[in-house]
Amino acid sequence: MQDLLRHLHFENGLIPAVIVEAEGGEVLTLCYMNEEALRETLRTRMVHVYRRSRGRVMKKGEVSGHTQEWRELRIDCDGNSLLFVVQQHVAACHQGYRSCYFRRYDPAEDDLQVAGKKVFEPANVYREGTG
Amino acid sequence: MQDLLRHLHFENGLIPAVIVEAEGGEVLTLCYMNEEALRETLRTRMVHVYRRSRGRVMKKGEVSGHTQEWRELRIDCDGNSLLFVVQQHVAACHQGYRSCYFRRYDPAEDDLQVAGKKVFEPANVYREGTG
Repeated sequence: MQDLLRHLHFENGLIPAVIVEAEGGEVLTLCYMNEEALRETLRTRMVHVYRRSRGRVMKKGEVSGHTQEWRELRIDCDGNSLLFVVQQHVAACHQGYRSCYFRRYDPAEDDLQVAGKKVFEPANVYREGTG
Repeated sequence: MQDLLRHLHFENGLIPAVIVEAEGGEVLTLCYMNEEALRETLRTRMVHVYRRSRGRVMKKGEVSGHTQEWRELRIDCDGNSLLFVVQQHVAACHQGYRSCYFRRYDPAEDDLQVAGKKVFEPANVYREGTG
């Protein structure tokens, strides 16, 4: 991946990656990768992220089993971000929704409304402390 | 937008925003907003960004006329990023492509390939120094 790295700019060691569903094209989440996470993502075909809260690289879905296998990788014009087209297993969001962007803002009410459908119950997937 | 702000986390004063096309749902770009850019985006219905290279808020398409009028705003589960569904005028990318993600990575060749269609010629739109 030397040629790819030559085109990318990491900021404080990280680059953001937009994750899009292959079927339907919905934006699922935005995550951050360091060079190691990107390397593991390319090597294994499964999205890996750098979790700042844990200070380490994790496979997306490591705890829940809700993994993302990528089909296509695109990079933006400035090499400042990545876009992965993935096959999502179950759901991307730890709150039980297919996409992390399940809340819509209503400007008239200055209010957030749930616009996505819950597909699993977090309490049944994440035990206490597994996050 | 007080209720919205209560849900958002800005990092060093900025929050990333994924910009998606209303028609077709293609991811166009990833930009960054500070509170002022978000406020102007909500007030005018046109996407405004904080350009770090210029140290100021700019309307997206201020120079080129390639503006983005948003239809829907979503926020992610953790309040760490935004997603705007927009009507894109002409193209999002300053290099002449509809989407900034016009390059696809080929892992076998460790190579980038242009996968988007050019819709305008940058030299005809941006005069020297206008960026």
